[in-house]
Amino acid sequence: MKVIAELSVTPIGVGLSLSKYIVECERILKNKKLTIQLHAEGTNIEGELDEVFEAIKSCIEAVHQLGAPRLMTNIKISSRTDKIEKMADKIQSVEKQL
Amino acid sequence: MKVIAELSVTPIGVGLSLSKYIVECERILKNKKLTIQLHAEGTNIEGELDEVFEAIKSCIEAVHQLGAPRLMTNIKISSRTDKIEKMADKIQSVEKQL
Amino acid sequence: MKVIAELSVTPIGVGLSLSKYIVECERILKNKKLTIQLHAEGTNIEGELDEVFEAIKSCIEAVHQLGAPRLMTNIKISSRTDKIEKMADKIQSVEKQL
Amino acid sequence: MKVIAELSVTPIGVGLSLSKYIVECERILKNKKLTIQLHAEGTNIEGELDEVFEAIKSCIEAVHQLGAPRLMTNIKISSRTDKIEKMADKIQSVEKQL
Repeated sequence: MKVIAELSVTPIGVGLSLSKYIVECERILKNKKLTIQLHAEGTNIEGELDEVFEAIKSCIEAVHQLGAPRLMTNIKISSRTDKIEKMADKIQSVEKQL
Repeated sequence: MKVIAELSVTPIGVGLSLSKYIVECERILKNKKLTIQLHAEGTNIEGELDEVFEAIKSCIEAVHQLGAPRLMTNIKISSRTDKIEKMADKIQSVEKQL
Repeated sequence: MKVIAELSVTPIGVGLSLSKYIVECERILKNKKLTIQLHAEGTNIEGELDEVFEAIKSCIEAVHQLGAPRLMTNIKISSRTDKIEKMADKIQSVEKQL
Repeated sequence: MKVIAELSVTPIGVGLSLSKYIVECERILKNKKLTIQLHAEGTNIEGELDEVFEAIKSCIEAVHQLGAPRLMTNIKISSRTDKIEKMADKIQSVEKQL
C-alpha cells in the first residue's frame, strides 16, 4: 500500500545541535530510493508502507548508533485505498484554490 | 529494541462515529500480546520496535478493510539505549514528584 | 468551545532526565483547574480551548525558565460542535465494545 | 517568544475531500501576516507564540463554521530561548551537510 508519511526524529541528551543526527537519517531515506521532501519540522516521505517503516526503523537505529541515547520519533501516515495520492497532488489541490 | 509507542488511528470519510474502527485496532494489539494502555487520545504500547510496527501495519490494513477509505495514523516512538523504560516507570517518575 | 487536548513537552539540551520539567508543567495544569490525565506519552486535558492554549503557553514558558533552552511541544486538539465529549466517554465507547 | 510551529487540521465526518477546509485555514494564516510554508502533511508557521495560537484558534473555529462537526488538530511548537531560529535556517543546516 502506497502512503505519504511524515517523519521527525528528535535526539534527547546530546545537547542543542541536532542537525548531525537529522542528516544521518536523511541519508538513509535517500539511499532507500524513497521520494522525500525535507521541511522545517520534519521530512515527508512517499512510498510503500513496508518500505517506509523499514526506513524509519533504520533511521532510529542509526541515530542511536551515532550517539543519541534517547529519541523521540514522531510519524504520521496518510493512507488511502480509494486512490493513489502523491505529495505534489496534496499541495496543488490546496494551492490552486488559494 | 524495546520501545514505548503511542498510536492514534483516525478514519476519514466514514462519518462521525469512529469507535468501531478503534475497537478493531485494539483487538489486533491485544492479540499480538503487546502491553497496551488505552487513553482518551490514543493507545500506548510497550514492546519490541519490530513488533510494534508490525502491529500498527496490521491495524492500518484492518481499519481500511473494515470500510475506511482514508486514514490518518499518528505514531510516537520513545526509544532509549541507556536503559529499559516501562510505561509505568514514566508515569511514576512524574507522579512521585507532584 | 470545549475540547479534549493532549500535550507532550520535550526539553532538548538538558540531558536525559526530563521528569523535573514534566512535573513543572503538570503543576501548572493542575493549578489552572483543568481536568487532566497523565499517561506514559503525554497528558490529556479537558477544557475550554482558550484555557487549554493559555495553560500550554504557561507550560512552555515555565519549562524554558526552569533551564531548558530548546523545547519541542506536541499538541493534539479534538474538537466537536455536534456534542460535548468527555475523556471518560471516549475511553468507554471503545472499552464497552472490546 | 518567536516559535516555529507546524499545523495540521483534519476534518472528520465531511467525506473524503478535505482541501476546501485546508484552504480556509491557509487564508486565515495568510491574513494574519504570518510566515507560512504549506507542505504535503501540514503547514509550517513562523511567528510569535501568542499570534500562532490565536491563528490556530481562528482556523479551528472557521473550519467548524464551514461545516465540519469534528476536527483533529495536530500542532508542533519548536521554541528556543538560546537563539532565534528561522524555518529556512533549519532546512539549510541539514541540506548543507548532505
